[in-house]
Amino acid sequence: MATETPQHEPWEELSEEIQAEDPQRLQHTLSQLSPAETARSLSRLNEADQSHILTLLDPEEAAGLLTELSDTQAAGLLEDLEPSEAAAIINELPSDEQTDLLTRLDTQEAAVILDEMEPEEAADVRLLSRFAPESAGGLMITEYLAYPDTARIEDVFEDLRQHSEQYASYDVQYAYVVDQTGRLSGVLRLRDLLLSPRGRAVTTIMIPSPIHVQTDASLNVLHQLFERHDFFGIPVIATTGQLLGVVRRTDVQEALGDQADQTFLKASGIVGGEEFREMPLRLRASRRLAWLSINIVLNLLAASVIAVYQDTLAAVITLAVFLPVISDMSGCSGNQAVAVSLRELTLGLVRPYELLRVLFKEAQVGMVNGLCLGGLLGAVSWVWQGNPYLGLVVGLALALNTLIAVMIGGTVPLLLRRLELDPALASGPILTTVTDMCGFFLVLSFASFALSQLRI
Amino acid sequence: MATETPQHEPWEELSEEIQAEDPQRLQHTLSQLSPAETARSLSRLNEADQSHILTLLDPEEAAGLLTELSDTQAAGLLEDLEPSEAAAIINELPSDEQTDLLTRLDTQEAAVILDEMEPEEAADVRLLSRFAPESAGGLMITEYLAYPDTARIEDVFEDLRQHSEQYASYDVQYAYVVDQTGRLSGVLRLRDLLLSPRGRAVTTIMIPSPIHVQTDASLNVLHQLFERHDFFGIPVIATTGQLLGVVRRTDVQEALGDQADQTFLKASGIVGGEEFREMPLRLRASRRLAWLSINIVLNLLAASVIAVYQDTLAAVITLAVFLPVISDMSGCSGNQAVAVSLRELTLGLVRPYELLRVLFKEAQVGMVNGLCLGGLLGAVSWVWQGNPYLGLVVGLALALNTLIAVMIGGTVPLLLRRLELDPALASGPILTTVTDMCGFFLVLSFASFALSQLRI
Repeated sequence: MATETPQHEPWEELSEEIQAEDPQRLQHTLSQLSPAETARSLSRLNEADQSHILTLLDPEEAAGLLTELSDTQAAGLLEDLEPSEAAAIINELPSDEQTDLLTRLDTQEAAVILDEMEPEEAADVRLLSRFAPESAGGLMITEYLAYPDTARIEDVFEDLRQHSEQYASYDVQYAYVVDQTGRLSGVLRLRDLLLSPRGRAVTTIMIPSPIHVQTDASLNVLHQLFERHDFFGIPVIATTGQLLGVVRRTDVQEALGDQADQTFLKASGIVGGEEFREMPLRLRASRRLAWLSINIVLNLLAASVIAVYQDTLAAVITLAVFLPVISDMSGCSGNQAVAVSLRELTLGLVRPYELLRVLFKEAQVGMVNGLCLGGLLGAVSWVWQGNPYLGLVVGLALALNTLIAVMIGGTVPLLLRRLELDPALASGPILTTVTDMCGFFLVLSFASFALSQLRI
Repeated sequence: MATETPQHEPWEELSEEIQAEDPQRLQHTLSQLSPAETARSLSRLNEADQSHILTLLDPEEAAGLLTELSDTQAAGLLEDLEPSEAAAIINELPSDEQTDLLTRLDTQEAAVILDEMEPEEAADVRLLSRFAPESAGGLMITEYLAYPDTARIEDVFEDLRQHSEQYASYDVQYAYVVDQTGRLSGVLRLRDLLLSPRGRAVTTIMIPSPIHVQTDASLNVLHQLFERHDFFGIPVIATTGQLLGVVRRTDVQEALGDQADQTFLKASGIVGGEEFREMPLRLRASRRLAWLSINIVLNLLAASVIAVYQDTLAAVITLAVFLPVISDMSGCSGNQAVAVSLRELTLGLVRPYELLRVLFKEAQVGMVNGLCLGGLLGAVSWVWQGNPYLGLVVGLALALNTLIAVMIGGTVPLLLRRLELDPALASGPILTTVTDMCGFFLVLSFASFALSQLRI
C-alpha cells in the first residue's frame, strides 16, 4: 500500500513564490514539476494566485505552462487576464491550440483577445474556428512548409537555413509543393530532400497528387487513413484545392483518446463529457443534476409498475426483497451489452443498420447468462423461503429479463446512432427504464398468477 | 435517419473470391475497403474462409492486412495457419506489433512460430516480450538508426543511401549516436543533418545526453514526458546505458486511447477490458457471467436489509415502490463521482492520498443534489399518497443517501488505487452494494420510526 504523504505540497511552494513575485524561482519550481503535478498544483491555488501566475512568467514560458494543462484549466487561467496579456501568451501557441483555447472562452472575450493578437496568428485562428473541432479543419495545424512548384531543392535548403529558428517550433516531417494559386500538387519527404542532388527541381522528387482530405473529413475518416497509411501528417485542402493545413497523426490519436474518455464520462452521467473538481460547485452540481433529474423521472415511471401490483406485493411481501435485485442485475447485464456496442460502433466493427446481427448475438449470451443467473436467484429464494414456487417466479423473471436486457442493451446504441442521438449519453437511461419496467412486470405478474402457491 | 442497407455486403464478395482462390481480385477488393470495413468484413466470414484468406495473399500484403485489425482479431486469424506461414507474415511486421500479436497466441504456438521466424526478428520479439506491455520496454520499437560516435555526417548519408529501401519502412525522425559499447551518447535530428557541412563529426551536431527512459518507465511517465517535450520519440536504454529501442509519441497516445477504452469497458462489467461479438459464445457468456455472479451475490447481500425490515414494509407497502428508485438514483449519483475520480486519477490531477480533498469536494455536490433529488422524491410521494410523513421519510432517505453515494463514489477509486486494485473494475460493485444497503436501511428505519404516521 502506497503511503506517500509529502510534508510540503508543491502548490504551497508555488503560492509562496507568487506572493513574493519571484519569476525566477517560480519558473524553476515549475520546471521541476511533471505536467500532471503542474496541473494538479495550479488547481489547488486560490483564484487570485491562479490569475497572477501567468503574468509573472514571460509569454513564451506562460504558453509552455498552458500546454501542460487541459484546455478547460488553461482557458480558466486566461479568463482573468487583461486581453493584451492573454493575447501575448496565445501568440506563442501553435494554431490548433490557440483555437482550442479561444473557443472555450466567452465569445466576446475571445473577440477582444483576437484583436490584440498578431494579425497573422489571429487570421489563422479565425480560419480554424470555422471548422468543427473533431473534423480535419478543426484538428489541423497551419504551421507547415510549402514551396512553389518552380523551386529547386537548393531553394528549400536555403529557406530552411534562413528560417531555422522559426521552423524549430514546427513539427516538420514533410514539405508541400503548391502551384501558383496555392493548390497542393505534391509532397516532399525530408528523407528524399536529404538524398537528392541539390540542383534538381522539387517536382522531380515530390510524390505527386498525394493523399489529402478536405476540411470536413471526420475523425473516423482520418483515423482510418492513418491506420492504413504510415503517414505522420495528411494535408488538408479547400474544396478549390488550396492547401490550408496539415492534420498530424498525433492530433488524431489525441482526439480519439479524448473521445474514449468522453464516452466513459457521458455513459456515467457526466453530460458535458468533462468535469474537474476545481470547477465551481454550482456548475458541477447543476450539470450532474440535469442528468439525475431525467433519471429520477424515468425511475418513478418504472416504479409505477410496482404500484399497480401493490396487492400482490402485500400478499407476498418477500417479493419486495427481490425487486431491487432484478432491477440491478438486469441493468448490469444490459450495460455490458451497451459497452460492447458502443465500442464496436466507434471502431466501425458494427453498422447502425446491423440490428438483427446484434440481436442474434446478444440473444445467445442473454439465454446462457439468463439461465445461470435466474437459476441461481431461483435456488436462493427457494432455499430461503422453502417455497419452490417462489423460486420459479423469481428465477424465471430474472432469466427472461436478462435476455431482454442484453438484447435491448446491444441494440439501443445502434438505434440511437441511426437517430443521430448520442448513444453514450442516452443508452443507459433508456436501458434501465425499460428493463426495470419489464422486470417488475414479469416478477409481479408471475406472482399474481401463482398467488395461491406463494401465500403460505 | 440513416437508412443505408447495401444490397451486397463486401464480405460476400470476399467470400466468393476466397472460394475462387483469386488473390488478385481479393487484393483489389481489400484495397477498396477502409480498415474498419476490412475488420468488419473479415469478422463476418466463416472460420474456414478466415484462415484461408491470409494464405492467398503474399506475406507482405497479409501483414498489411493484419495491421488494420485489432490485435485480438489478427491473432485469431494467425492461429489457424501453419507456423511457417504465420512466421513469414509476422516477419513483415514492425517489432512492437510482432510482440503484441505473439503474446496473444498460445505460448506453445508462439514458440513454434518464433523458431520459424528470421533469427534477428525473433531475437527482437524475445527481447520485447520480456517487458510489461504498457511500459517503455513493451511500447518501444527496435527499428531505429544508430551510428558510432566516431562517424561523420557523410557516413550517415552514405548509410541512408545504401539502406534506403530497408529504412523506408522505418519511422525515422532521429538518428542516435552510441559509443563503442552501444551506450547512448546523443541524438541527431534529421533537420540538423540536412543543414550541416557533411565533413563534420556527428558528435558536433548531436544533442548530447538526450532525455531518455529505462525499459520500466510507465505509460504515465511517458505521457508526461511527451506532454512536456515536443519529441517524436524517446530513446529507451538498459540499466547499463545501452540503447535498446525508441518509444514513439504515437505509440504512447495509442496506448492511452486503449487505456481509456478499457476503463470504460471494465467499468461496464467487461472484465478483460475487451469483447468483440465475433468471439465464441462460450467465452463471451462466461466472461460476462464472472462479473455478474459477483454482482448478484452483492445484490442479495444488500437486499437482505429489506428482509430484516419485512414487517415495516408489510405495514406500509407503498414503500416498496420507492426502494428500487432510491437504489437506482444513489447508484447514478455515485457513478458520476466514480467517473470523475477515475478520470482525475488517470490524468494525475488527484493523488490516491488526497481522500479528504475529494470527500470535501464531493460532500458539497452531494448536499446540493441530495436536497434537490430528495425534495423532488419527497414531494412526489407526498402528493401521490397525500401523506407528508411518507414524503419526509422517502425524501430524507434519498437526500442522505445521495450524499453518502457521492462521497463513497468519489473516494473508492482512490482507496482501490492505494490498495493496488483496479479502480475501474471494482469501484462500481462496491459503490452499489454499500449505497443499496445504506439506502434500504435509511428508508426502512425512518419508516419504522414513523410507522404510526405512515399507516393510514
